[in-house]
Amino acid sequence: MKNPVERLEERLIGGDGKKAALVFSERNRRYFTQFPASDGALLVTAGGAYLLMDFRYEEAARYQAKYCEVMGFSDLNKALCELIDKHGIEEVYLEVDKLSVAQSRKFQEAFEKHGAECILDKSLDDCIRDQRMIKSPEEVKKIEASQAITDAAFQHILPFIKEGVTERELALEIEFFMRKQGAEAVAFELIVAAGKNGSQCHAVPSGNQVHKGDFITMDTGALLDGYHSDMTRTVAFGKVSDEQRDVYETVLKAHLAVIDQVKPGMPCCDVDRIARDIIEKDYPGTFGHGLGHGVGFEIHEWPRFSHLDKTPCAPGMVITDEPGIYVPAKYGVRIEDMLLITEEGCRSLTKSPKELMEL
Amino acid sequence: MKNPVERLEERLIGGDGKKAALVFSERNRRYFTQFPASDGALLVTAGGAYLLMDFRYEEAARYQAKYCEVMGFSDLNKALCELIDKHGIEEVYLEVDKLSVAQSRKFQEAFEKHGAECILDKSLDDCIRDQRMIKSPEEVKKIEASQAITDAAFQHILPFIKEGVTERELALEIEFFMRKQGAEAVAFELIVAAGKNGSQCHAVPSGNQVHKGDFITMDTGALLDGYHSDMTRTVAFGKVSDEQRDVYETVLKAHLAVIDQVKPGMPCCDVDRIARDIIEKDYPGTFGHGLGHGVGFEIHEWPRFSHLDKTPCAPGMVITDEPGIYVPAKYGVRIEDMLLITEEGCRSLTKSPKELMEL
Repeated sequence: MKNPVERLEERLIGGDGKKAALVFSERNRRYFTQFPASDGALLVTAGGAYLLMDFRYEEAARYQAKYCEVMGFSDLNKALCELIDKHGIEEVYLEVDKLSVAQSRKFQEAFEKHGAECILDKSLDDCIRDQRMIKSPEEVKKIEASQAITDAAFQHILPFIKEGVTERELALEIEFFMRKQGAEAVAFELIVAAGKNGSQCHAVPSGNQVHKGDFITMDTGALLDGYHSDMTRTVAFGKVSDEQRDVYETVLKAHLAVIDQVKPGMPCCDVDRIARDIIEKDYPGTFGHGLGHGVGFEIHEWPRFSHLDKTPCAPGMVITDEPGIYVPAKYGVRIEDMLLITEEGCRSLTKSPKELMEL
Repeated sequence: MKNPVERLEERLIGGDGKKAALVFSERNRRYFTQFPASDGALLVTAGGAYLLMDFRYEEAARYQAKYCEVMGFSDLNKALCELIDKHGIEEVYLEVDKLSVAQSRKFQEAFEKHGAECILDKSLDDCIRDQRMIKSPEEVKKIEASQAITDAAFQHILPFIKEGVTERELALEIEFFMRKQGAEAVAFELIVAAGKNGSQCHAVPSGNQVHKGDFITMDTGALLDGYHSDMTRTVAFGKVSDEQRDVYETVLKAHLAVIDQVKPGMPCCDVDRIARDIIEKDYPGTFGHGLGHGVGFEIHEWPRFSHLDKTPCAPGMVITDEPGIYVPAKYGVRIEDMLLITEEGCRSLTKSPKELMEL
């Protein structure tokens, strides 16, 4: 497989010396060059790719950035315009999903003076999205390595779940464990929600304490080598009621049905429907979010298992399968794996057990 | 002082029932409502402010969001258009610095059908910037509380600086300490750079080990209750050379000169010049970044101590004073406090010592 910059050049520029793509957003810049920096720009032309870095990053980029030539700058627009002149660029594709209205205007004004027009259709965004949606085998390995830390953190945290421990203490312990295992960061602000806080599906860990009979939902993930993992498990502290058990088993049934039935070619919206039909039958109106999202270089990528996304599943996609039931002011249950779409169906990248645990 | 939503309404809407401001960006939404959420929108009208939250956040927002009415939505544009119709809004200000080109188009298309025009000049951005630039006494207290954690972390880390310890181990120890002290997160990816890594002013902590004679630059900060702190200290492990000492003393001299001379009315670019003249005299070309940046609700805010920023200093601004000297492939020194501009001059919000330490 060609490297990411070559793939972009091939699809969007196609060897046309008059065209260039400007990758300005932080995440996409890192995706293409594997170099993290809060500022800068990557200009991809038929004649080569240039990573423009200011004084703060230039030296480090020269050591670490891949698939491009590193150039320093003090005035970004000036440096870009010099490259536009040098290559005789007449059209520059911009990222309309990422670029602010104000920034796009600055580029337009600068480039027009050098005879280059900004292309503000969605060509570049679509191209990057499609490219990033299909993970290379190396990318899948990185996601699995990230998930291995998340799986280990789940085993690590179970003995800490005791009467009176707070959501915040549990979330911190998970985070510290992940960082000590080598994660560069957590993949997102970790969620630990006990008892009725679990009814808020994006609850922020608080001083709320764990008590007997509580469901504890832990939505956790690591960031390792630029790649994210994402897993949710709901465990019980002590024995649960029959009502709680039924809710849990319904969520699990929906989750497993997706793993069983998803296959290449199936539209993402139909995958969402598999889980939703099961939950809606017995718990109508309690599953208020999409079934899942692509994950990899960003925690939320394309495609989505959502009624709005008709993208057909394809081998190499990594998408979460995370149905939930939220009973307002009482509790919530969510179970989440990351699924790699394969030629045959899917393979879960998540190894943690998901049968109900009563700790 | 009026609350932030009232201040925005007063300056931008001025009681005009036909006008509204749409605050879409995550940080600005949180600034106005004190409620953190990754999605949603705040519509400020003369007749009240509405925070639109999807299923994931709606319940939590009803408990926690301030200065606004919380409304749930499943289709954001539809919900916004209903409010536009209800209030007879004809003009909607958008954040052009924050809003993507693609998102601004979506709002424009939706609102135009309901007779409302999007205002894409910089009025809303300028208004928010000016408002956020001047911190209220409550905000200064929050920044000081955040800095107290950063100061404590500096004292905490000194005994960990030993032969062979890695940058990464030190950075993690600082971060864990801050989190245990109650920080909701670190203010940015902490920088610990030892020896020649210190010559990269935005080095990422690595497996590089501390050795005798190294300068160790630690650029650290906490996030507490939505407010950031930011401090850099460079310490030496063991005795330093005369050359190193001279570099350190030059940076310190530049840093202190700013504290001594800054005052209300002075253009930010002139403040940058105070430090730059001192460093350029003996170490030309080694101070390749701006002197400082506003800090508060975001880690990088307005104004900047930069040759590009002519904003006059004004009481209530909190700006970093962080000169540095970077000797490529050898070492670097940076010293940073946060300065609160006062009627008389400034007050540093940073309590950690800054005389050269040889540990």
